Amino acid sequence: MIRSERSSKRRGAATTGGMTARGPLLKDELDIVIPTIRDLAFLEQWRPYLSPYHLIIVQDGDPTKKIHVPEGYDYELYNRNDINRILGPKASCISFKDSACRCFGFMMSKKKYIFTIDDDCWVAKDPSGHEINALEQHITNLLSPSTPLFFNTLYDPYRAGADFVRGYPFSMREGVATAISHGLWLNVPDYDAPTQLVKPAEKNTRFVDAVMTIPKGTLFPMCGMNLAFDREMIGAAMYFGLMGDGQPIGRYDDMWAGWCCKVICDHLGFGVKTGLPYIHHSKASNPFVNLKKEYKGIFWQEEIIPFFQQVVLPKEAVTVEQCYIELAKQVGEKLNGLDPYFTNLSKAMVTWVEAWSEISSSHKKSQATANGSAVK
Amino acid sequence: MIRSERSSKRRGAATTGGMTARGPLLKDELDIVIPTIRDLAFLEQWRPYLSPYHLIIVQDGDPTKKIHVPEGYDYELYNRNDINRILGPKASCISFKDSACRCFGFMMSKKKYIFTIDDDCWVAKDPSGHEINALEQHITNLLSPSTPLFFNTLYDPYRAGADFVRGYPFSMREGVATAISHGLWLNVPDYDAPTQLVKPAEKNTRFVDAVMTIPKGTLFPMCGMNLAFDREMIGAAMYFGLMGDGQPIGRYDDMWAGWCCKVICDHLGFGVKTGLPYIHHSKASNPFVNLKKEYKGIFWQEEIIPFFQQVVLPKEAVTVEQCYIELAKQVGEKLNGLDPYFTNLSKAMVTWVEAWSEISSSHKKSQATANGSAVK
Repeated sequence: MIRSERSSKRRGAATTGGMTARGPLLKDELDIVIPTIRDLAFLEQWRPYLSPYHLIIVQDGDPTKKIHVPEGYDYELYNRNDINRILGPKASCISFKDSACRCFGFMMSKKKYIFTIDDDCWVAKDPSGHEINALEQHITNLLSPSTPLFFNTLYDPYRAGADFVRGYPFSMREGVATAISHGLWLNVPDYDAPTQLVKPAEKNTRFVDAVMTIPKGTLFPMCGMNLAFDREMIGAAMYFGLMGDGQPIGRYDDMWAGWCCKVICDHLGFGVKTGLPYIHHSKASNPFVNLKKEYKGIFWQEEIIPFFQQVVLPKEAVTVEQCYIELAKQVGEKLNGLDPYFTNLSKAMVTWVEAWSEISSSHKKSQATANGSAVK
Repeated sequence: MIRSERSSKRRGAATTGGMTARGPLLKDELDIVIPTIRDLAFLEQWRPYLSPYHLIIVQDGDPTKKIHVPEGYDYELYNRNDINRILGPKASCISFKDSACRCFGFMMSKKKYIFTIDDDCWVAKDPSGHEINALEQHITNLLSPSTPLFFNTLYDPYRAGADFVRGYPFSMREGVATAISHGLWLNVPDYDAPTQLVKPAEKNTRFVDAVMTIPKGTLFPMCGMNLAFDREMIGAAMYFGLMGDGQPIGRYDDMWAGWCCKVICDHLGFGVKTGLPYIHHSKASNPFVNLKKEYKGIFWQEEIIPFFQQVVLPKEAVTVEQCYIELAKQVGEKLNGLDPYFTNLSKAMVTWVEAWSEISSSHKKSQATANGSAVK
């Protein structure tokens, strides 16, 4: 059903400045999720693009601290006390003192699409000096198909002025539905601590005017800074793991989610895109602090990547939830030798997907009640 | 041996305008191969960039026609009579009345690198209006490693101002040696006949400032218009098939070579890049003529692509020649049901690689004689 809906939109949504005749694109179908520990002043700059949408703010750290949200934004805010109250014992799967807590916002959303952005990301400009409406580009990416089965050398074939090139099989030109749109960053690049230490002043100034599908079977490093996805298609796998407080690792939350999501998208035949849109990433985090958080991950990823490259999901796994449970099982079996952390992570993955299913059911029930239909 | 040589050059050749202290980059290690049926006036525009290099011109069609080469270029020219004389009965593997004949030039070269370009390709300009030295960019691509095992979201990590992003395994950051650099085209895009017919006026005006590795396991449509490769690494597989005169198909010569080369590069651990450099492609060929040449390919590729996606080469095949012989065998066995053409093509592939080996041996002998060493 998802596919046929997408196919009818394959040439992308016709829009002007993110607006349709009915108002901002997908206004009632998309939530913006922001993890934060501070005031959200960055939203002032985003006002023309993001203010029509509903925000889900996940407050990390001290729950007694008051987070200031610029006026005019419609939002709901969850702090640690809320997470504990809503999830009960299952709250253990949601990280604390790490931006991994953002995935709680994905769970609480009742919408089909999510855009998540960090609070140190600002509006970028294209080479002609125009502000980039990042959300509009993400929506265009999500509403047009992906092409994971064969590489198109002129990049996104659905974009105006482009198409499939000679030699591209015609049977593959409908593409597949897109689950994830991964955006990039101008100014401060998303480097690991060792690279930050070696190249403290490097800035990304290259605007690459392309969106492309990551081919089937290829893993990529998914950054959570500027990311959109179809919550109904892949949300149950968009779990940011156990990071931060009480955990031996940090800064691998989005990477973990990306590896899990990519193997599941490949299995289920969904597409993952990367490239446009750019945001302006303002400030590099402290490389010494980052090194402390990352160093185990730097070792572990040498074994984690081959694991994900070889993982095979059974044919019987036909929903994201089924795939995720199976993946959790394999993580527990095959990565536990690396560190006991992976046994905990495997369990947390199961807890996450159980909590996801419970919250989804309660959303459906309350929606049915709101619609006046009988709930048995 | 090839790898260690490349690793020392991993950060790319330091150059200014394609020049080193010793003169033009790789001047004595690279040949330019041009298939043509007409005068090579386009070389006038390329003079600042290509004139220091040796040309190998493969004259297609009527051998009595005189091809005019602009003055000052150093070249050798082969027409059909030469091909027949040099290869004898094996000349049957070289296509006639089709630009597929260019691969004879690859065979006759004694150099390590090849750049091949069509005679309707002109010097393109970047968005700031500067002429693009396509050959210099190809050389940069070939002399820096590829990253086929994991996707880097900031594209070529070896380029100035870029690097590997967070989450990219450190053990994979040395990359692998690059065998092929596939360049793109501004103005007239490389579309098939149906797309040309549907979009007769479409021009490619988007300059995408990126070079990327095509991931391992992913096929792509390789266009022969603007292409460079390491002849020692992959030349024996750069066979453009049986096309044109007396054959049921045309315009799939470069595609065939690309599919064969990609599966062999994947098997041998070599890299394939696409993206920069752009050339300006001046003139769309006639879509009606093209449709006649292509239409069987349009059907056949629907079975050819799954064949190449599933092909497995044996571990014992450790040279390009061994891989190519094995691939020819599988083409004969698995595609012969599609059309008797594939039985002929399979045989021609074997003939090609035998001819390649013979010519290579005779080159080595004549070089040894020239060096004054004894040849037994």
